[in-house]
Amino acid sequence: MKNLYELAEIVDKRFSHGEEIPENIIENIRSIVCNKGYIGMAQINPIAGNIEYNAKKIAKYIKYSNQIGLDMVVFPELALMGYPIEDTIDRHPIIVEENIKWLRGLAKITKETTALVGFVEPRKSNAEGKKYYNSVGILKNGKIVGIVRKSLLPNYSEFNDYRYIEPSPVVGVQPANTLGVFDKESVVNQSKIFDTYGISICEDCWNNKEFFDKNLYEKDPIEELYQDGPEIFINCSASPTRAKKEQLKHNMLSFIAKKYKTPIVYVNQVGAIDNSSFDGSSRVFNSNGELIARAKSFEEQFLIVNPKENIGKIYPLTKGLDKSLNEQKVFTLEYESDLERTYKTIIQGIRDYFKKCGFKRAVLGLSGGLDSTVCAVLLADAIGKENVFGISMPSHITSKESKSDAEQLAKNLGINFTEATIRPMIDTTSECLKQLFSTVEKKWDGRYTTSFTPDNIQARSRAMFLWGISNEFSSCIPIATSDKSELYMGYATINGDMSGGFAPIADVPKTKLFAFARWMNENREEKNAIPEAIILKKPGAELAIDPKTGKPLIAEDALMPYEFLDEIIWRVENKNEGYKALLDTTFVYETHNPISKEQKIEWLDKFFRRMSTALYKWSILPPSVIVESRSINKYDYRQPITSSRINYKGIDDSEVESILAKELN
Amino acid sequence: MKNLYELAEIVDKRFSHGEEIPENIIENIRSIVCNKGYIGMAQINPIAGNIEYNAKKIAKYIKYSNQIGLDMVVFPELALMGYPIEDTIDRHPIIVEENIKWLRGLAKITKETTALVGFVEPRKSNAEGKKYYNSVGILKNGKIVGIVRKSLLPNYSEFNDYRYIEPSPVVGVQPANTLGVFDKESVVNQSKIFDTYGISICEDCWNNKEFFDKNLYEKDPIEELYQDGPEIFINCSASPTRAKKEQLKHNMLSFIAKKYKTPIVYVNQVGAIDNSSFDGSSRVFNSNGELIARAKSFEEQFLIVNPKENIGKIYPLTKGLDKSLNEQKVFTLEYESDLERTYKTIIQGIRDYFKKCGFKRAVLGLSGGLDSTVCAVLLADAIGKENVFGISMPSHITSKESKSDAEQLAKNLGINFTEATIRPMIDTTSECLKQLFSTVEKKWDGRYTTSFTPDNIQARSRAMFLWGISNEFSSCIPIATSDKSELYMGYATINGDMSGGFAPIADVPKTKLFAFARWMNENREEKNAIPEAIILKKPGAELAIDPKTGKPLIAEDALMPYEFLDEIIWRVENKNEGYKALLDTTFVYETHNPISKEQKIEWLDKFFRRMSTALYKWSILPPSVIVESRSINKYDYRQPITSSRINYKGIDDSEVESILAKELN
Repeated sequence: MKNLYELAEIVDKRFSHGEEIPENIIENIRSIVCNKGYIGMAQINPIAGNIEYNAKKIAKYIKYSNQIGLDMVVFPELALMGYPIEDTIDRHPIIVEENIKWLRGLAKITKETTALVGFVEPRKSNAEGKKYYNSVGILKNGKIVGIVRKSLLPNYSEFNDYRYIEPSPVVGVQPANTLGVFDKESVVNQSKIFDTYGISICEDCWNNKEFFDKNLYEKDPIEELYQDGPEIFINCSASPTRAKKEQLKHNMLSFIAKKYKTPIVYVNQVGAIDNSSFDGSSRVFNSNGELIARAKSFEEQFLIVNPKENIGKIYPLTKGLDKSLNEQKVFTLEYESDLERTYKTIIQGIRDYFKKCGFKRAVLGLSGGLDSTVCAVLLADAIGKENVFGISMPSHITSKESKSDAEQLAKNLGINFTEATIRPMIDTTSECLKQLFSTVEKKWDGRYTTSFTPDNIQARSRAMFLWGISNEFSSCIPIATSDKSELYMGYATINGDMSGGFAPIADVPKTKLFAFARWMNENREEKNAIPEAIILKKPGAELAIDPKTGKPLIAEDALMPYEFLDEIIWRVENKNEGYKALLDTTFVYETHNPISKEQKIEWLDKFFRRMSTALYKWSILPPSVIVESRSINKYDYRQPITSSRINYKGIDDSEVESILAKELN
Repeated sequence: MKNLYELAEIVDKRFSHGEEIPENIIENIRSIVCNKGYIGMAQINPIAGNIEYNAKKIAKYIKYSNQIGLDMVVFPELALMGYPIEDTIDRHPIIVEENIKWLRGLAKITKETTALVGFVEPRKSNAEGKKYYNSVGILKNGKIVGIVRKSLLPNYSEFNDYRYIEPSPVVGVQPANTLGVFDKESVVNQSKIFDTYGISICEDCWNNKEFFDKNLYEKDPIEELYQDGPEIFINCSASPTRAKKEQLKHNMLSFIAKKYKTPIVYVNQVGAIDNSSFDGSSRVFNSNGELIARAKSFEEQFLIVNPKENIGKIYPLTKGLDKSLNEQKVFTLEYESDLERTYKTIIQGIRDYFKKCGFKRAVLGLSGGLDSTVCAVLLADAIGKENVFGISMPSHITSKESKSDAEQLAKNLGINFTEATIRPMIDTTSECLKQLFSTVEKKWDGRYTTSFTPDNIQARSRAMFLWGISNEFSSCIPIATSDKSELYMGYATINGDMSGGFAPIADVPKTKLFAFARWMNENREEKNAIPEAIILKKPGAELAIDPKTGKPLIAEDALMPYEFLDEIIWRVENKNEGYKALLDTTFVYETHNPISKEQKIEWLDKFFRRMSTALYKWSILPPSVIVESRSINKYDYRQPITSSRINYKGIDDSEVESILAKELN
């Protein structure tokens, strides 16, 4: 006979295909788990604001949990609404009303199994503070029996909870009759209602004073919950994946379980909502802080566990991620340990964006370069090779190799491919612009002696082709292939390569892309889909000829070595280093390519200068998956475009005084 | 002899031209104000993050204040940093270090006159909570003598204070030695330090429990400050203009002054930072709640007042704005009272964006339609007619009238103008795409029988021209001419008319644009610059022929009547109304154009369907000025793009139950 986890996998598969679960399997599982303290971790992938869709999904798992006799079934944070929902709940309160109706509807279908369902809870209309709570409803025997409200509201990076959510004044469970009318005055002692479980919501468990060197909040809800002596901690989460977060989360949850000698059941959302990709990886630690169960990453799953009996199954960690906290203190080109996570993060990001928006197909330019190549592989894997069209759009500068590399790649991947010349468009546009420029020149000075016009005509003509296909064929969007290193440098053409319906690799730096390409060649089912030549060639946009070499301009010559550039980016994002700190540090690049101080200054100057003028481009970047621990995604990082004159070099006190003295004389 | 305000205006003018202030004028002013309780309200226009620029400006006013013997000079919130600075202070802490150095430098140049200077204050590195306070330094006799910290942090609409700012645990002045190391434990009784003035920062004064029906915060800093018996309230602000906010602010400040029988001096930032346009309009109310001084709107000014002696000057309110709270409860086409504010808000938005980013010139397509016309007028006024190039880019669909109207407009405005045909580009692109489509069609089904491809080729060819000029001529950006009504409908072409370096009218609905055009014709120095034909004609993009009429498609036929559309937008934004509420309300449009319920349903369905798919376009919209009380500007309103399947119609409880029942069988 199959064991619990073999049976559960059959059920998972049937759920994912929308198939009936055979009676005998239900019976078998029931015989193992019924009334024995088992908990179902329903790691679901919601659609933001599509409450009916989310509720139906939840309903199926509630029904199933009842059938097999679980003690409890736990859903992620804001399961009914999807997280994040952002400002939508302010402008469209109808969806909050709707989520309450569905919550009540779900309560009615509950039986013995307790269900924890996240939802947006309206507050009294005249209550001080924000309009809503971020709440979890406790549903049982046809009723809502209690409500838990989130105390700690993340409001940094991609999180904006505090815009429309009020922090709860109290941790733990409050009575069901406080729904929609809860305030400080109505607080009752939660342990009277629901004393077995210490329930919290996401950020509530991210403030342990011993674990973190620096705490964002005063209150520690877990510490408070512990005072009521719960047998099990439960945390309903929606926590997106970012580089290095897996290890941090693992260590923190383990620390909490061990510190309080209390098992913790952590249920995380899976799936992507716009720029945020949630990894799932729900898990359970026993009271010794040992991991006893871990759900799959980047997949919906219903994992059955018994925290008190130490029963669970550990699905493997994403390859390469170890369990140490392993804070990255220095820049390194050793990307290996993060590449599978990177792959799955982006794949899910693409897939869910397409699915949730109703797109099916993608079209992209294949230049034979690394960026478009990596995008093509990711798209083929995310939405199916038959749904990808790669277009080689050579210009007069495009090399033969680029064309053949692109074609070979398409062949290897099995995606649709064609070559389409942009020569006539370039010629016509150039001719039209030439006339226009000569007219403008009669009125305006300041015409550049060398300009990017010819380069940009090429990039924009290509985008014209791609958007044309998107206009002409249903459910198809073009792909923006810009990478993170080049976006930092503003090395991307507006209405050209940075234009598209989605930007898969906008948060992946170039040096990582090289490692990523090799990793994909080794780890995808079809090995070596990416021609070696593409990985070996020096990146360049092939938009202009380098007058020095007579060959297409190499990007590193126009910018700086990618290895150097990516270390600046890493240091600025992760260490918040300024110009002087950067100048005083030995870069990895320098350890094998000694450079003069003048050279270093030139590159650093170029970095800050170009970054400042790239702020506008960041602001109009298409939706893209956040991958790294810090990003320039506009929903993660905001900087006024008009701040382009910041003095990143800093200033000495004495300079300040002399400037002021001079100014006042 | 000239009076105080005549003299002060001479000084203002000289400051704005960077000229020396003549000794005799200084002496004259000094003889009036020295040591008599006068306060200088330094309504300055900072550049975000450009601390040297801001500090120099502040230094000049500090010096001047000393020269004339003011008791105090007050600068806006975060005067050294500029507001908003957003996440920049997290990623680039160097600028916070720098602003402390400049603060200390400014302290050293102070003498008898107390200066209140806003800055970002770092907190102890291990302190719980966020990294920074939003503070005001009190500078006097060469030293920092005290610090005030902001208690209430707005975190809605365009405000994101709570991302990196910690709320102050205490109101009022704390000792100077707490700079950078302040925490709860170091709180001392503020009245001991600085008891004449009750100083607060912006949002701190926006929580009066009697004035507002609904309060966002528990604490009322003004009420607390009042307990220490200040003689004068001072509020350092950076509060952007929005429709209807002038009246609200006036009434609220008047209410506070009267309630506490204490004058209030309110100093507001002026100038635009990206999407936010700050109106200045600093003011003083006496202890009876009467307005006794009001600085100019949308201009830097140094206004000298004596709150205790009731001495001040009231510069006129923006025309048409009265002083009543005048909450707008219903949609109306009576825009008159808001048009001058709208004009100045956008003019300043354009001017400051250009100036602060280092742009000088703008190029835009002139179609002869209303949107590009209004943009052209605004640009001519904001950056100078010689810096504007209007290009008429007719296609085969463009009417003769459109061409001549565009030309006439340019002539009236005196901007540069040329006509440039896009015909060759359309022909070449169409031909190239035709071939490409026939290739794609061999692999992909779902080719549209009618598509927007021909329309979009036109719009994108035009953008190609405009971006070409931007590439070829220095300091020049193209302008995106989309309006708010059409952006709601997604009636704007990606990489076409919605592409540009700046979008001046993205927050102005179409019906308001008509009134706005007429207003400009009446109120600009050159009357009737906009040809009447442009205002009279029915808007249409002239991208396609209506098969029914054989003439260019009228936008209202493709969408719905603008009057109806704009009322939906207004209701959704200002009343948060859902589908059913909209259906049950009689629209202004219906009062003079009776429509069937089916027609209304069709338009409402279209609105929500098109709005849902427009979310992506909103996310890539160029920087634009926020004008109305609510907007779709992405730095003001965020909604996940993948939330496009929201059921805006809502649902009944019985439907919920039957759907769930069906789902579970």
